[in-house]
Amino acid sequence: MASSIRVTVWNEGVHEKKDEAVAKIYPKGIHGALADHLRKQPGLEVVATATLEEPEHGLTEAVLAKTDVLLWWAHLAHGEVQDAIVDRVQNAVLSGMGLIVLHSGHYSKIFKRLMGTDCGLRWREAAEKERLWVVLPGHPIADGLSAYFELPHTEMYGEIFDIPQPDELVLISWFEGGEVFRSGCCWHRGKGKVFYFRPGHETFPIYYDANVLKVITNGVRWAARREGSPAKPGCIHCKESLSPIRSGKD
Amino acid sequence: MASSIRVTVWNEGVHEKKDEAVAKIYPKGIHGALADHLRKQPGLEVVATATLEEPEHGLTEAVLAKTDVLLWWAHLAHGEVQDAIVDRVQNAVLSGMGLIVLHSGHYSKIFKRLMGTDCGLRWREAAEKERLWVVLPGHPIADGLSAYFELPHTEMYGEIFDIPQPDELVLISWFEGGEVFRSGCCWHRGKGKVFYFRPGHETFPIYYDANVLKVITNGVRWAARREGSPAKPGCIHCKESLSPIRSGKD
Amino acid sequence: MASSIRVTVWNEGVHEKKDEAVAKIYPKGIHGALADHLRKQPGLEVVATATLEEPEHGLTEAVLAKTDVLLWWAHLAHGEVQDAIVDRVQNAVLSGMGLIVLHSGHYSKIFKRLMGTDCGLRWREAAEKERLWVVLPGHPIADGLSAYFELPHTEMYGEIFDIPQPDELVLISWFEGGEVFRSGCCWHRGKGKVFYFRPGHETFPIYYDANVLKVITNGVRWAARREGSPAKPGCIHCKESLSPIRSGKD
Amino acid sequence: MASSIRVTVWNEGVHEKKDEAVAKIYPKGIHGALADHLRKQPGLEVVATATLEEPEHGLTEAVLAKTDVLLWWAHLAHGEVQDAIVDRVQNAVLSGMGLIVLHSGHYSKIFKRLMGTDCGLRWREAAEKERLWVVLPGHPIADGLSAYFELPHTEMYGEIFDIPQPDELVLISWFEGGEVFRSGCCWHRGKGKVFYFRPGHETFPIYYDANVLKVITNGVRWAARREGSPAKPGCIHCKESLSPIRSGKD
Repeated sequence: MASSIRVTVWNEGVHEKKDEAVAKIYPKGIHGALADHLRKQPGLEVVATATLEEPEHGLTEAVLAKTDVLLWWAHLAHGEVQDAIVDRVQNAVLSGMGLIVLHSGHYSKIFKRLMGTDCGLRWREAAEKERLWVVLPGHPIADGLSAYFELPHTEMYGEIFDIPQPDELVLISWFEGGEVFRSGCCWHRGKGKVFYFRPGHETFPIYYDANVLKVITNGVRWAARREGSPAKPGCIHCKESLSPIRSGKD
Repeated sequence: MASSIRVTVWNEGVHEKKDEAVAKIYPKGIHGALADHLRKQPGLEVVATATLEEPEHGLTEAVLAKTDVLLWWAHLAHGEVQDAIVDRVQNAVLSGMGLIVLHSGHYSKIFKRLMGTDCGLRWREAAEKERLWVVLPGHPIADGLSAYFELPHTEMYGEIFDIPQPDELVLISWFEGGEVFRSGCCWHRGKGKVFYFRPGHETFPIYYDANVLKVITNGVRWAARREGSPAKPGCIHCKESLSPIRSGKD
Repeated sequence: MASSIRVTVWNEGVHEKKDEAVAKIYPKGIHGALADHLRKQPGLEVVATATLEEPEHGLTEAVLAKTDVLLWWAHLAHGEVQDAIVDRVQNAVLSGMGLIVLHSGHYSKIFKRLMGTDCGLRWREAAEKERLWVVLPGHPIADGLSAYFELPHTEMYGEIFDIPQPDELVLISWFEGGEVFRSGCCWHRGKGKVFYFRPGHETFPIYYDANVLKVITNGVRWAARREGSPAKPGCIHCKESLSPIRSGKD
Repeated sequence: MASSIRVTVWNEGVHEKKDEAVAKIYPKGIHGALADHLRKQPGLEVVATATLEEPEHGLTEAVLAKTDVLLWWAHLAHGEVQDAIVDRVQNAVLSGMGLIVLHSGHYSKIFKRLMGTDCGLRWREAAEKERLWVVLPGHPIADGLSAYFELPHTEMYGEIFDIPQPDELVLISWFEGGEVFRSGCCWHRGKGKVFYFRPGHETFPIYYDANVLKVITNGVRWAARREGSPAKPGCIHCKESLSPIRSGKD
């Protein structure tokens, strides 16, 4: 409890290399911008950033072992993420690591894996206005927000968002062009927690917005690994019963 | 965040006066035993205890205003709780106060009010064994528990427990005599949170059990008022629209 | 299964008497218009319509006993509904009757009673456009809908809608003026089901819209009483245990 | 609506060939026994049975196209199910097909795929008594059940069952040896529905039990494909906005 929450920020890191406009907005990459913000938050510690091009995409067993919450941003190269690393991250979540999936990460292998669905949606790039409404005001992820906040120019994501019903739905977005979207969604998976948060884009400077950063910070705190949580069993053969059995067999 | 969670413990306080056996187990009353435990927990502060016989049942506006989490134990005298106080407590929960309802509190006016259902169940007093299984291992209320814990002699509560489906179901009980029960249930109500926790009885010394106390402490932390949460509106007439409207009327 | 679903349509019936414009749109009252539609649906039977001014508001024990689904429209006179009738309707729902709450019925005593919350929201009358998006496409209430449908001129209802998280969230509304709303919400309460459906107004002819009527019809089928469902216990003292108990007491 | 629900029963079909005891209980295989029962139910039609050893495991595109609900029983050979067929079945579910996963099918590839978790549990074969309690009495899957029903000799499955929280939890099991289990669980996935039902074993004659068969029949009706449900989008690029946008870009 007293010790800090250890965060790793993963970013596929492709846009920043291919597109000068993106590099200008995020000179250290999207991961760098997010890490810079998170480092300043009390009780959080950024233990690593990692990108697609690193060996094992930077997500070695050692890195995951010291990660309480993993952030995931990706867009262009979902297919290049190795299945073995997806297995490893899924296993880390089921074992208690938190996962924050951002924006176009909705279509990543790891998010689809944890959801069991297709995770498709409607989208449009028209630099339109988005308004995010809080619908679960007592949830820790809503801390410090007003009834709604706005992003003046965003990519639109619209329903049907093909996800399982969230355990807790915190935010719903309104878009100028006529769509709505479940933008802040919480799920339990195994011993871990998953938070999907919609905003974010490579060319709109979304990850400098104060409210967006507040939600991400809150999400990290909410999703953080619980040190004291009970062991999650795999399939266990219970040789002994806990109470006497009078079976017909015996 | 840095400041402590302010807890008030309410107990109808009737058993302790009528029954020597109860008074012997809980010489300061059930509220006193719970308050003694909670006072020792880091980050928690007991701001009040209160009982049925006090004016306004000890739950004045002033007391609720300084309460982040209210514990509720009651059994014999649900009907004697004044409706005006039930209204006040409900309003406090909807405004962000946490509420922990214990054991026979399932049949209190305030719990029925917040659930919208009858909150009935099966019960039997046979001093039988209860085993509480964790079913949501990453939830903060499960912190520090093993896969299950036992109470050697308890009153049985069995399904159908007439409650709305919990937002999060943390614990399910097994009873020696053949019943099961959803024993640790979480709901959001307005800006507040409600946690129902089954164990507890006036003549079994349940509130000295280390696991039971752990769950109650975890429950208090989970349900605590969020200082920064957005204002919950009542019915609000929005005179201005946020975006231009091209209505057919105008 | 083979027999029809028996529907009762309740309408406070005040607007129609006070306001010629409303009477013109709904010459038989809102209840009359809804009943006319429901009567034409295969497998549905309208057994009664009822209004506030009737003795017992037309909701006698006899009427509720033969009702599988009750529709509830109200706006001006929530406070005039007698508490004894609210008790009776709540009890009918907990015993298996379905309840469809329409539009401004969100602020009725019976809806608040079943939700346990304040059921407040934002609202504005600007004859603006509403677009209702399906978010749970396989749910029976979405049968026959497209990805979304529109109402050209409606009263706006906006979040935060102070309700418990729905068991199933089927529809989310977008409003031209900038708000979103959980417009089609399902809950279990006791043995009964509750469906809240937002559209409807006294002066916009919403209840002639084909999609709105489709959702209401689907809602009736979804919420209908299940003849074969297990008895819901109140508080039951189980004298006998189902399995032998080796308690410390005996 | 008028037309029947088309059911396919899948069984890996390995036990029946290897073990005479199993073949004796289920001379036509577990799939044969289930199909025989379902064929007799009004409104249901068994369009196919299929087993592991058939080409494409008997689950061709053609078979799935005419299947409204697929039953899945498996135990020994989960690993031999081809990934391409798992993909196909998952896609069929997301497109609207219902899936009933029985007993040891909890550890099948398709169930893990749709859940996103490990789906592990505790188990023991001691021919002990199981008692299944209804906890959601108004749910269609509980139709015709009493408050509980019993199986005299079963294999035990115990918590923690590593699944996402069900959208609707209908049944909880009690086991003589001291465990509990969420035995009847409902989820939405894409346009389809998934029902997990615990009972069933190769050597206990579970699939002749009247209550077990009732639950399976109810589950088939609940999970059946909805013909009229809205198209589920994959990722769709919306070239046009539905409402005018005043973006900063233009």
